[in-house]
Formats: sequence, C-alpha cells, structure tokens
Amino acid sequence: MRALALDGHIRFRSDYPEPSASGTDVLVRVLTAGVCETDLQLVKGYMGYAGVLGHEFVGVAQNGPFAGRRVVGEINCACGACDLCARGLPTHCANRTVIGILRHDGAFADYLVVPQRNLHVVPDALPTDIAVFTEPVAAALQILVQVPVTPNDRVIVLGDGRLGNLCAQVLAPVAGDVLVIGKHREKLALLERRGITTARLAEAPRDRRADIVVDCTGSDTGLPMALTLVRPRGTIVLKTTVAGTQTMPWAPFVIDEITLVGSRCGPFDRALVALERGEVDVRPLIEERLPLERGVEALDLATRRLKVLLTVSDA
Amino acid sequence: MRALALDGHIRFRSDYPEPSASGTDVLVRVLTAGVCETDLQLVKGYMGYAGVLGHEFVGVAQNGPFAGRRVVGEINCACGACDLCARGLPTHCANRTVIGILRHDGAFADYLVVPQRNLHVVPDALPTDIAVFTEPVAAALQILVQVPVTPNDRVIVLGDGRLGNLCAQVLAPVAGDVLVIGKHREKLALLERRGITTARLAEAPRDRRADIVVDCTGSDTGLPMALTLVRPRGTIVLKTTVAGTQTMPWAPFVIDEITLVGSRCGPFDRALVALERGEVDVRPLIEERLPLERGVEALDLATRRLKVLLTVSDA
Repeated sequence: MRALALDGHIRFRSDYPEPSASGTDVLVRVLTAGVCETDLQLVKGYMGYAGVLGHEFVGVAQNGPFAGRRVVGEINCACGACDLCARGLPTHCANRTVIGILRHDGAFADYLVVPQRNLHVVPDALPTDIAVFTEPVAAALQILVQVPVTPNDRVIVLGDGRLGNLCAQVLAPVAGDVLVIGKHREKLALLERRGITTARLAEAPRDRRADIVVDCTGSDTGLPMALTLVRPRGTIVLKTTVAGTQTMPWAPFVIDEITLVGSRCGPFDRALVALERGEVDVRPLIEERLPLERGVEALDLATRRLKVLLTVSDA
Repeated sequence: MRALALDGHIRFRSDYPEPSASGTDVLVRVLTAGVCETDLQLVKGYMGYAGVLGHEFVGVAQNGPFAGRRVVGEINCACGACDLCARGLPTHCANRTVIGILRHDGAFADYLVVPQRNLHVVPDALPTDIAVFTEPVAAALQILVQVPVTPNDRVIVLGDGRLGNLCAQVLAPVAGDVLVIGKHREKLALLERRGITTARLAEAPRDRRADIVVDCTGSDTGLPMALTLVRPRGTIVLKTTVAGTQTMPWAPFVIDEITLVGSRCGPFDRALVALERGEVDVRPLIEERLPLERGVEALDLATRRLKVLLTVSDA
C-alpha cells in the first residue's frame, strides 16, 4: 500500500506492507489525515520513532461493529491490564503503543489498524475535513478536564499555531477573558474574527495578572514567559513539549506558589460534540490539502502553514 | 540592642538600633528563635537581603491587644490594599515585606516589630521551644491546603532535613502511605521512631508509583528525582527553592500529565493546634540551643544539625 514512512528520514513508499487486523483490532481505510506539530518533531528524531507517521485521521472501518462507517480513533492503544489501565488512565498505560508515534504504524497510509475500543463513529452530518480535527480538539478540551476554568478567570494562551488556536477557542466560552499572544499577524487575525482578543509578542502585557496561562508555543521560551504573566497562586498549563533539556529558575514556582499542569490527550466524545455544534470552528485553519503522494511536501508546508491535510482516498 | 545582622556578611552586634512600633505594629521581645534553611541561603546572598535575620520566633508582645502574652508571628507583612490582598492572598501581597527575609528586620535580636494582624497568641500549655516551630509546621501544613491528600495516596517525601521531617509528620496521618527518602541514617531514624517508613537514597524505589512526591531537598537533584518517582497524572509538591537556574527536560510533565505545585507559607492557627495536640513531634529535632551572642556559630551548626535554637531572653 501507499504510506509516508519514517526510518531515519521520511519518504513516500508505494510498497509498504498492508496491515491486517486480528482479534479486537479494526482495519481502517484512511480518508483524510492531518499533519500535526508532533509529526514534525518525529521527523526531526523525537521519540526515535520509525514507521508510518500520522495520528489525526478519519477513515472507514473495514471490520467490527462499525464496519462501513466513518470513524476517528484515539491514539493511545492501552493494554487494559496494567496498574494505570486499572486506575482508569489508559492514555498513560505503561505498555501502550501510540498511533503514528510509538511502535504503531500511523494514518499517513491507505490503511492502519486501530483497537476497536479506540474508535468513535463520526456523525453523518460532520464532514470528514472537520472530523479530522477530533484529536487536536480533544487535546485542547483536556485543559478543561484537568483544570477548573471559571468565568472569573483571565486566561492567556501563548502561541497562535494550530494547538494555540484550538485551545483559545475551547477556553473562550468558559473563561472570563482569553488573550492569545502570538507572532503571526494573519494567524492572530483568525482568532480576532472569532471574537478572541489577541496581542503580538511585542505588545504582550508585562504584568502578572493571568489566572491561567496555557503554553502552546512548542518553544523553550514559552514556560519562562508564562511565569512572567501568571499571578501568584495561578496555574500554567503546559500543552506542548520541547525536546531535550531546558534551563530556567524554578524558585518562582515556590515563591509564588504556581501550579504547573502538564496536559496531553483528551476526550474524543466531547470533541466530536464540540465540532458538531460548531463550538470550535476549524475550517479557517485548513490552509492546504495535498494527496498522500505529496506527503513529504505536506510535512514541509506544515512548518509554515496552520493545518495541512493529506487526502488519502474517497469515501 | 543585640542582633545578628547581615550586611554582605553575618555578624553579631550589640549596638543595633532598637525598633519602635507605631500604628498597628507591635513591638515583640524575642524569647527564642529557630534557624531555618532560608537563613543559611540568605547568608549566602539569596534575595540580596540586608538586615536582622530570623523569621521563626516566639516572643512577648509589648503593646497592642496581646500585650504581655507570648506570641508567634506570620512572616509576610501585607499592605492590605493591593489586588492580591483583595483576593485573600496576603502571603503574596505585591508590596509585602517578609520578616527576616525581605525589607523587614527579623527575630535574631532582642526586639522586632510585627503587624498586629500577623500575631497569634501561643496557648499557655505550649512550651516556647515547641511553639517556635509554628512557622515551619505551618509551611508543612500548606501542602494539605493546596493539594487534596487522601488515604488512597502513596506519598514520597524527598529530603530528611528539618522541613522534610515536618512534611512527613503532617502527611503521615492523612495519606495512605508515606515514604521519606534521605541521605542521613540518624535523621531517617527519627522518622522511623515516629512510625514513618524511610529509605536511604541508594535503596530508593526505582519505579513510578507515587501519587504525590514532595521535594524538600533544597537541591537541584530533587525535582528530576521526583519526576522518576511520580506516577502519570500524579503531583509533585515543590517545597524548597534552589537558587539560580536549573537544567532539566520538561517534556515528561506533558507526556505524563504531571502537576507541579509550588508551596510556601501556611496556616499558623492550624499549626498551633497541631503542635498543641502533639500531631507533630518537634522535640527530637532540637539538636542545639545557643544564646544569641553565639548566633554566628549557630548558623554554622545549622548546616549540619536539624534544628538549632537561639535563646534570646527569658519569659
């Protein structure tokens, strides 16, 4: 089958072995997949991953209870047997594989294999190009799972990229006030059109008044900047990872009793509802659609564009 | 008056100007003061503090509603007017002075001045040598103010020093299980006698099973070690500060959705109750008592001993 595979470097292959589903696994024929910052990091060597990339997808289930229907899939494939699974934390399963990220071939291919319990049916009314945002919208919604956000809270989102945009959209109806600080005039304009206040980095506030700061910068400047904006006893949510080690003073966390919350994958069911109801508008984020064959080019474009979609096959 | 004052270096002076109380300030005649890790850091130049050291004390109020009674005093002197005071966060007041730490002469002296609202009367039955632990016991109790701790929680305390000991004692009746990891056989033995499980660093667990890890090491090895012990979705409480910057990877906070809680000063009223009821046993921590004149020696001893008390005057 066709696949965009990583093995030291990334390349398009037309001879990649087609997977087969056994047990409670489901073979999914991919319709559309989205390129994410993590894909770009993996290409640079993050996690030492080798295999097919891609973890944001909509496909058609080929077997199992959802056979013939459009599905999206949670990316953490849990063992169901370890301590963490028993605690109800399958996204942290000690033995997990992660689709397109850790020992599990991903969705930039004609087919991938997904455990049945990871699948969610896409409502008929929800277009494939919208449903492909389920995974990143779920990641944004995870903030609300982990941190109480109220109409009294002033929130600052650092970063105007894909994830920063979605986090701001998810937080805006819940928080008292959301400000997105970013570098790109045109990306900030998208948020402004959605009624969200923005500021360019140079115009960012200099005072420590935010109750919650969400770091979506993917940069090692994000967390130190968050510390200059969060009020004492406030919360910093760390959404993006930075490879390697970072240097900064940690004393401010103690002196100002700051809480730092690391936040990753979120609830797919709630994300599908948010997309169906239009609580989050993802269409303006789609800047490019390329066929799977042009996947290497798509990954390159994604370093500069908001969302790049790979169209793999027709419904 | 006599005072142990810092001005680039630390020295005992017999000619330090005696303070005077005005408005709602209270002049306190010091009976006993305790040496804390922060004092040792201040001597090394932390905060650039100049003035009389000492923030753990019992004294006798010389004026105001508590005149003639033994008192302890909260160390953050708030303005009562700023945003943070209005939010009920006086310990984070933007204009605060901090007794013996920030623009406010401390308790290693015959007298100090304390705002009336910072004072708490010491119950008659509570000996001065016990009541002098109110401030650090309050700091330990602050963990319970900030983090829900339940009988289902496995807690690890890193560090067997003064603060580690008190944190372990405060957590032991609440958590399911408390393990203190330290370097000093005799300090760990004190905790064992209190029924608290301990391990030396070399015997420390290597797995990530703790729900909560409390870092009381005061060392830049504490936080990275905490990350190797806390379970995914667990909490690290940072109680001690490290001067300067620290280099470590942040990605584990996101990948494992760890929460980090910086924690500082706590509730004096509850600390006095804990000391009165014997919920916390501080007597075994007292290793030395020296008169104020030998304060420089006391600070040196405190680098090796658990609690060193300075006896300033008699009741």
